[in-house]
Amino acid sequence: MTRWRGGGGSDRPITLAPAPRRGDVLNVKKLINDAGTVVPDALRGLAAAHPQLRVDLENRIVLRASGPRPGKVGLVSGGGSGHEPLHGGFVGYGMLDAACPGEVFTSPVPDQVVQASTAVDGGAGVLHVVKNYTGDVLNFRMAAELCAEEGVEVASVLVDDDVAVRDSLHTAGRRGTGATLFVEKVAGALAETGAPLAEVTRVAREVVGRSRSFGVALSACTVPAAGGPSFDLGETEAEFGVGIHGEPGRSREAVRDARGLVSVALDAICADMPVSGDVLVLLNGMGATPLIELHIAFAEVVGQLAGRGARVARSLVGNYVTSLDMQGFSVTVCRLTEELTRLWDAPVETPALRWGR
Amino acid sequence: MTRWRGGGGSDRPITLAPAPRRGDVLNVKKLINDAGTVVPDALRGLAAAHPQLRVDLENRIVLRASGPRPGKVGLVSGGGSGHEPLHGGFVGYGMLDAACPGEVFTSPVPDQVVQASTAVDGGAGVLHVVKNYTGDVLNFRMAAELCAEEGVEVASVLVDDDVAVRDSLHTAGRRGTGATLFVEKVAGALAETGAPLAEVTRVAREVVGRSRSFGVALSACTVPAAGGPSFDLGETEAEFGVGIHGEPGRSREAVRDARGLVSVALDAICADMPVSGDVLVLLNGMGATPLIELHIAFAEVVGQLAGRGARVARSLVGNYVTSLDMQGFSVTVCRLTEELTRLWDAPVETPALRWGR
Repeated sequence: MTRWRGGGGSDRPITLAPAPRRGDVLNVKKLINDAGTVVPDALRGLAAAHPQLRVDLENRIVLRASGPRPGKVGLVSGGGSGHEPLHGGFVGYGMLDAACPGEVFTSPVPDQVVQASTAVDGGAGVLHVVKNYTGDVLNFRMAAELCAEEGVEVASVLVDDDVAVRDSLHTAGRRGTGATLFVEKVAGALAETGAPLAEVTRVAREVVGRSRSFGVALSACTVPAAGGPSFDLGETEAEFGVGIHGEPGRSREAVRDARGLVSVALDAICADMPVSGDVLVLLNGMGATPLIELHIAFAEVVGQLAGRGARVARSLVGNYVTSLDMQGFSVTVCRLTEELTRLWDAPVETPALRWGR
Repeated sequence: MTRWRGGGGSDRPITLAPAPRRGDVLNVKKLINDAGTVVPDALRGLAAAHPQLRVDLENRIVLRASGPRPGKVGLVSGGGSGHEPLHGGFVGYGMLDAACPGEVFTSPVPDQVVQASTAVDGGAGVLHVVKNYTGDVLNFRMAAELCAEEGVEVASVLVDDDVAVRDSLHTAGRRGTGATLFVEKVAGALAETGAPLAEVTRVAREVVGRSRSFGVALSACTVPAAGGPSFDLGETEAEFGVGIHGEPGRSREAVRDARGLVSVALDAICADMPVSGDVLVLLNGMGATPLIELHIAFAEVVGQLAGRGARVARSLVGNYVTSLDMQGFSVTVCRLTEELTRLWDAPVETPALRWGR
């Protein structure tokens, strides 16, 4: 395998977290063996739990065991680990063909993406679904160039749905968060029909254009190799507009009840994109928020969106785009069309999302 | 609706947690509106998220929207809230017909169970799946008697899979935990085939007899109405054999790596029940443990069971039988038979478990 070639002279992947070292002492209370082997250890568990996946442990690629289907556009995504089930849990029929997990909160290297793209290419080209973080953008761009050299046609869609901040830590422009799941599901469904790369890319971009997100943290997350929380929150504080790596949001304010927190999120989303008609909503947990609380927040979202003239026609509630052990939630709203609704409803069979086949 | 009749002269349901009062100040950092309305608020969200369910908010019963099927045995379970997705998330084709959520960590009242049983009876009788806690046992027993008076035939299966302790806080005998999911899935699958109540009861009891569990807490959980953690754990301590309400386990010891914690759990399970051949494993998160850590622990389970002569033939990894915001995990092992494997593999379509239909 060709090694990481670096971007702009760097010989290290761009990272949002300390580099893990094998043999680091266990200085955080986590269910891990070693802060230096979190990703490969977890990939072994993912492989054991889901025989319908093929997990290439050496190259750190999660693939469908069934291999590429001739004539089908391949979908490849990836990004730092720590957001599970994103992306490996979304590999399967009707969604991704491959996922490339980087180290925790660290971009995958271009070679992972090249290998994944080559492996899933069924002759109809490959779509890269890229969350808008500088490292991901650079590495996927380099991978796309290398793919072109190897004769694999690649298109890319950049997901930048998080309205909280522009030009955040490690990001130029808006960050990519919950809408990534929508893009992967909808574009994945269209790809299964045999649609050409241009069409799959078009619908992926349409989902991005119609989706907005906002997150709230009630606690920080702890990167295993860092050994301590990524930021400090007071006993009664919440971070409004937090990023999925614990990046700062818009403000740090006194925590409110679910009603108030949801209202802040919907205000931010609706100020950026007028919301009406039928919408798809992801009420997402950050990783350590129990389902009973997510259901409480979701009831608020449905009621408050109704008050704003929108109907939650489709939804998903749970921990899908997580930030390790962060407590909190995010809301993602996508304004539906008939086509997007149909593609959302289409059968999907992945470890984390499964219906209707 | 007939009101709660009390057990042994009490006029209050038996509870493992402080009674919530509407209007309690929000003195914990949780995604809730009011410590007094956690359960109804969450049920509203569950209903909004899953139109295939019918949620009777007044009586607090979660039902299949499709109603009872004539000639099919009805499956009813229930227990304190705070363990989501158990039980409401397991209502649907191939699993439960109804769930009765009590207040947080508090048994449902007999009238809930009676109403649920009456609602799901398709003329072939109803099986109650009861976790072994004194309150649940008493209230389900009373409900069964009332059902008999109303002409509904009821059988019960008591789940007591947790090998950690005998005669724990609020329990005579062993506690019921993760095996409840196995019982609901397997008995639910058999019920769909039109099997009679005696057969469905037999297979449910067989699952209990062949299943054992053990849990480890890395942090305590906080009951909203209590406002503080249910117990204190030191910075480097874990509770070995913890109960799903934070009840004490066997010992409080220094935390170990995933390998060591899994080894403690499997030692306890295998000391109680010789494990070999094909097994079904639930690697369950307690609610606040991220999936990446659960996968690490699951890889350990698979490897260590192989070393003990058992093969993980079927598995489930995720937060299924939770304890609010507790960090930690439990392992449940069920020794499979051909029949149990077939029933486990049968189609299921519920909010939290879904495959193969």
